Amino acid sequence: MNTEFAVIGKPIHRVDGRVKVTGEAKYTADLSLPGMLWGKVLRSPLAHARILNIDASRALRLPGVRAVVTGRDARGENFGFLPHTRDKKALETEKVRYVGDEIAAVAAIDKDIAEEALDLIQVDYEPLEAVFDPVEAMKDGAPAIHDHVKNNISAETHLNWGDLEQGFARSDLIREGKFTTQAVVHGFIEPHAALAYWESTGRAQIWASKQSPYIAYRHLARGLGIPLSKLRLVQPYVGGGFGGKHEPMGCDFAALLLSQKTGRPVKIVYSQEEVFLSGRRRHPFIFWVKVGMRKDGNIQAVSLKAIADGGAYTSVGPLSILLPGANLGVPLRIPAAKYDGFRIYTNKLLSGPLYGHCMPQTRYAVESVLDEMAEELGFDPVDLRLINSLEAGEKTADGKQITTWGFKETVQAVADSLDFKNKFGKGRKGRILHGVGIGSNPGFVSGRLGGHEGSAAMVKLFEDGGVTLIHGATDVGQGAETVLCQIVAESLGIDITEVNSSRVDTELTPMDPGTFGSRTTYTSGHAAIVATEDAKEQLAAAAAEKLECNPQDLQFKDHRIFVKGSPEKGISLLEAVRTCFYTKGAPVIGRGTAAPKSGKMDYSTGTGKQFPAFSSGSQGVEVEVDAETGEVRLTRMVISHDCGRALNPLALEGMQHGGAASAAGQVLLEEMSLDQGVPLATSFMDYALPTVMDAAPVMECFHVETEDPSGPFGAKDAGEGAQIAGLPAVAAALYDAIGVRFRDLPITREKVLAALSEKARQEEGRS
Amino acid sequence: MNTEFAVIGKPIHRVDGRVKVTGEAKYTADLSLPGMLWGKVLRSPLAHARILNIDASRALRLPGVRAVVTGRDARGENFGFLPHTRDKKALETEKVRYVGDEIAAVAAIDKDIAEEALDLIQVDYEPLEAVFDPVEAMKDGAPAIHDHVKNNISAETHLNWGDLEQGFARSDLIREGKFTTQAVVHGFIEPHAALAYWESTGRAQIWASKQSPYIAYRHLARGLGIPLSKLRLVQPYVGGGFGGKHEPMGCDFAALLLSQKTGRPVKIVYSQEEVFLSGRRRHPFIFWVKVGMRKDGNIQAVSLKAIADGGAYTSVGPLSILLPGANLGVPLRIPAAKYDGFRIYTNKLLSGPLYGHCMPQTRYAVESVLDEMAEELGFDPVDLRLINSLEAGEKTADGKQITTWGFKETVQAVADSLDFKNKFGKGRKGRILHGVGIGSNPGFVSGRLGGHEGSAAMVKLFEDGGVTLIHGATDVGQGAETVLCQIVAESLGIDITEVNSSRVDTELTPMDPGTFGSRTTYTSGHAAIVATEDAKEQLAAAAAEKLECNPQDLQFKDHRIFVKGSPEKGISLLEAVRTCFYTKGAPVIGRGTAAPKSGKMDYSTGTGKQFPAFSSGSQGVEVEVDAETGEVRLTRMVISHDCGRALNPLALEGMQHGGAASAAGQVLLEEMSLDQGVPLATSFMDYALPTVMDAAPVMECFHVETEDPSGPFGAKDAGEGAQIAGLPAVAAALYDAIGVRFRDLPITREKVLAALSEKARQEEGRS
Repeated sequence: MNTEFAVIGKPIHRVDGRVKVTGEAKYTADLSLPGMLWGKVLRSPLAHARILNIDASRALRLPGVRAVVTGRDARGENFGFLPHTRDKKALETEKVRYVGDEIAAVAAIDKDIAEEALDLIQVDYEPLEAVFDPVEAMKDGAPAIHDHVKNNISAETHLNWGDLEQGFARSDLIREGKFTTQAVVHGFIEPHAALAYWESTGRAQIWASKQSPYIAYRHLARGLGIPLSKLRLVQPYVGGGFGGKHEPMGCDFAALLLSQKTGRPVKIVYSQEEVFLSGRRRHPFIFWVKVGMRKDGNIQAVSLKAIADGGAYTSVGPLSILLPGANLGVPLRIPAAKYDGFRIYTNKLLSGPLYGHCMPQTRYAVESVLDEMAEELGFDPVDLRLINSLEAGEKTADGKQITTWGFKETVQAVADSLDFKNKFGKGRKGRILHGVGIGSNPGFVSGRLGGHEGSAAMVKLFEDGGVTLIHGATDVGQGAETVLCQIVAESLGIDITEVNSSRVDTELTPMDPGTFGSRTTYTSGHAAIVATEDAKEQLAAAAAEKLECNPQDLQFKDHRIFVKGSPEKGISLLEAVRTCFYTKGAPVIGRGTAAPKSGKMDYSTGTGKQFPAFSSGSQGVEVEVDAETGEVRLTRMVISHDCGRALNPLALEGMQHGGAASAAGQVLLEEMSLDQGVPLATSFMDYALPTVMDAAPVMECFHVETEDPSGPFGAKDAGEGAQIAGLPAVAAALYDAIGVRFRDLPITREKVLAALSEKARQEEGRS
Repeated sequence: MNTEFAVIGKPIHRVDGRVKVTGEAKYTADLSLPGMLWGKVLRSPLAHARILNIDASRALRLPGVRAVVTGRDARGENFGFLPHTRDKKALETEKVRYVGDEIAAVAAIDKDIAEEALDLIQVDYEPLEAVFDPVEAMKDGAPAIHDHVKNNISAETHLNWGDLEQGFARSDLIREGKFTTQAVVHGFIEPHAALAYWESTGRAQIWASKQSPYIAYRHLARGLGIPLSKLRLVQPYVGGGFGGKHEPMGCDFAALLLSQKTGRPVKIVYSQEEVFLSGRRRHPFIFWVKVGMRKDGNIQAVSLKAIADGGAYTSVGPLSILLPGANLGVPLRIPAAKYDGFRIYTNKLLSGPLYGHCMPQTRYAVESVLDEMAEELGFDPVDLRLINSLEAGEKTADGKQITTWGFKETVQAVADSLDFKNKFGKGRKGRILHGVGIGSNPGFVSGRLGGHEGSAAMVKLFEDGGVTLIHGATDVGQGAETVLCQIVAESLGIDITEVNSSRVDTELTPMDPGTFGSRTTYTSGHAAIVATEDAKEQLAAAAAEKLECNPQDLQFKDHRIFVKGSPEKGISLLEAVRTCFYTKGAPVIGRGTAAPKSGKMDYSTGTGKQFPAFSSGSQGVEVEVDAETGEVRLTRMVISHDCGRALNPLALEGMQHGGAASAAGQVLLEEMSLDQGVPLATSFMDYALPTVMDAAPVMECFHVETEDPSGPFGAKDAGEGAQIAGLPAVAAALYDAIGVRFRDLPITREKVLAALSEKARQEEGRS
């Protein structure tokens, strides 16, 4: 543990931990306002249909019903991620495009009446042919889910670097494979919920569960036709996001419109069934991977084609379909590559970002092929990764400048912890088969994705020397508030208990694009430092007057301000604070902004982007497979990540444990199955989310610290690595145990048992 | 109307007007939280007693009761205005000092149960002799209300300037008089209320109706022993303050302590009876005034002795007893003066600031004597004021530097509007007697009162070019939010509808001492300008890059930024905003502080203080008196104030109308009578607050604009002038009508009738 710092690098408990554990933390569904009505959203029962008419007259006659709204009540326009992908309305008015699509909403004096009224709204539909398979949807003549969109291509990306042909030509071994991955869901415990109050002045306020409130409020403002500065989004505590709470949901629009119509506050809380019906899910992918490798294990070329099942609308689709290609060249050196990604509209609920945002699936597909080839060439997976690792200072073939780099150390840490060299390939005996596997991840220092992504912060001092960090970042459970408070406490030389953290209120807190791309510590943390330094300048000026010294020579530590190197020549922080507040009459407020230096991204070519820093990591998994039942048990998961600096090892491990467990869930358990667009699961009783009993009894984390000069206190990122590397690692360990490689997720117990039987039959046949 | 500005100087409607009129504005009593309990406060039935024991066991057994707290649950210390006047506890533990003194509180599942439980709390008292008259209380041997305080002197001030003896010696006429003024109450419509939630983490939050939240939170923190940075006071809309909502009340402490004990939110809303029992009231005063004047009307010397009935605790008493003396030398020149002020403890509810803070009573007493002397010397009251007016650039005998000065213009405006010269002294005929009178006020540019008084502000831009002004000032109905928004809109060249104003949240909004001393426009407004200028610098830097010019040469107007003098060479504000947010990734936030330059006040001598600017004003009143019924009707009130610049003439007139009507109420109607310390009024049915029917049918305002260079857009202050000058003006007009001068307020119809009968008898006797 670092001794240079007092707060940074320490395993400090969550600042918001206690109120969450005791139930004191208030989430959106906990809130109420005087005169509040309850809302319910009307959803399409059809996967694809034209809306001919909506007749709410019977619903409005039901006693207790106060209003019905449809999309025609919204005065805005289509919203979406990029100008040309704005394909969603507040509530749909012309067509429905999936079972669950939101078209109207009711406000009533209680929930039951609102629900009853839904049945009384008469919607006349003209059913249209639906398409559920993305490959079918791309074909000429397939039903057009959005008019004027050819072949249902919601977004596409095509990348090329190096000489692909030469790359394959100089390869000694070329292997390819087709992989499919399933839809999984975020599994946050808090459902989507909104409480809205639209004043007669035209100013609207909404309390909503969002992980990126500033994204949500932009979309809300556009969809409703209200200026950003008149729409106030307030952030209660958030019960998990994992990528599923960036955008406004139907409940947000409906609550606002119903409040506008009734003049009363309106609350809508989704049931879990509604979350499954119209929330987001991870993109199911079909990958075609082709890799060329030299005999010495060096990768020469990779060709990757991806078709992602996007569901009915685009959401952040351009980014979703960019990422598998844009991050392909990290952490393993790939001198030549071609990527063709297509995100396809289907008549299903929307696919969106989920923990690692399309990277876990990609690593699973690509690393499965790499491991196969290594085996053929006589390398183990560890050596393969060490051979192909990028190096510090290297510029990748697709133009990314690597600065600090700890990938090899992460590989080594995982290999050592698993005793990989001794165990690999040696567990396929007896009823209980043993296997080890390793996976890699390219980290996620996204910094900025094409503008809009600077963070800002303010630091407001109290007269007792305490501080509120006023920022726009969101803690969705990952520990952002804690780490940001640590950063301020360390900078100012105070205790973390003396730092308050604001939650987002778009009217008051400075813009921060949100919680995604593992960006919070790196970018929001940087803004917090700049704001703290600004406040320190004001305090240092006051202290320097008293100490008759140069303010630049002053240091802040242990609640004191003193001349660097002469700790005895100083004053207490409190004295400096009071001098500013009382003698000078100038309350201390610092402000800061942070915008990682990077170009503007072109989403179709992936060019123009310079990431400010790169993290990376590895993950190791040990499994036991019961050959007679097909049951797979994780016995050890090892996560190692080059996080730059682990600002809070405890919080970091928490994220990594969660990411790793969830990765195992996707490989072994989870699937959001649809039948003709209808989710088969309606609650967590029917959806096999891994519990603590399914996670490995041993989870080990090794933080590789490279102290990146661009990051706050040297930190890079670490949020999503464990999920990204987890998919290939679990799949690889399973392969090592049973000797069968699966190309379709999830790898259920039934599949394992079938594969083992088939293998036994084949072996019997051979013998 | 000024054409130089787009927003400043315009009669703009209140930004918070619509939501207040429609009932959408939420006040503290409107709020609720899940799991909330209701609290009630237990009050002393005795005026003076020692608390021997409090037994809550029976109350705690009542079903539905969740907790009882006493002062022993508070871990803090005594709080108060100055270190040596900290005489109040969260809830009293040792003694009760007035009927209504707060000693315990109950939280229960509903209001009725909480109320019922109060009766079940058994308090054993040892009754002590009470003292209700301040003159009696000052005598040796009087009951000591606070141990160790001699002669019950809560606070005192003694000022001296010039040579008093010489002043009287060179006077041609010396007159003296004793005056008494009564207690009146603030009459705000929203009662004291608090909703508190004390987290198990030790962080406490309170929603409370406060006009100076930052004063209240300091006292709460001290009384409860909690760090300022852990106590969050959030400001809902406030339904009037008038000086009565600076400090924490028993309900604030009780709600917090009950929440701490129960772990649940607790709300307490006072009934009007409780507001009367334990709210604040205006200090009743006894004044002894002695004035020396030359034959030419020049005032030579004033001696003023004041005894104020302070009630049971000191509150802001040191300031209350300072102000009559400290402001005596403005707006009329007084070359020599002596002031001895005593604020005395009595066994009654606390006296505190109320609209004009002890100045209205003082002006009534002093100007009554001045008017009498002018009459004797053959001057009319208008000329007397013109003769004695200070001048711009003058330094007063007590060391105040007058900069801009419009007092004479205010006198003239009032005289002209009333046709004073023609009407004065000519209305004492017939059944309906007519009178005109004039009063003066010294304004209230308090700026800073001994530190703690700097204001700060932040200006947060939205991506659409809108703005939130994040500040700590409180709108108690006077229009502060509107004027502050105007200041920001004008500075930034946008519309006022594009500016949001925060309300106080001590965790987020910057410190601002509060709404008192007519300081908001001057000081908080200055902070708003500095913060806006800071934001403009960031925008100008971006614009200057595009325009290839010097950022200092840029001007902001009509949503554009352009080179001064070349409006065509510019870009839209929106373009500059977007460049900062998106291209640079640096959201725009401005911050500013403002601390009017002034020394540190010594409260016992009144020295050391330099006010940054002086406003002043005059008020004229015309009355009709029905000689047969004694009924006094106001027919015209004229208010003229040197406000520097009228930033919003409409808001200014609103304040002046209210102040003038309320002044008339104190002279003619109102009295908070006590019987052995018990208020005789329990609701506004028994307390004669003037209604719109009692106010003058004609109210005219004349704004004298001097454009003070130190003020925001030239503004000084204007909030309290109309009330201060109103008391002497109404009394003078009544004198002019009936020829009898009253030395005790209020001058009720009965007193008028009695005086007229007495006068008639005397005249009959003489004839």
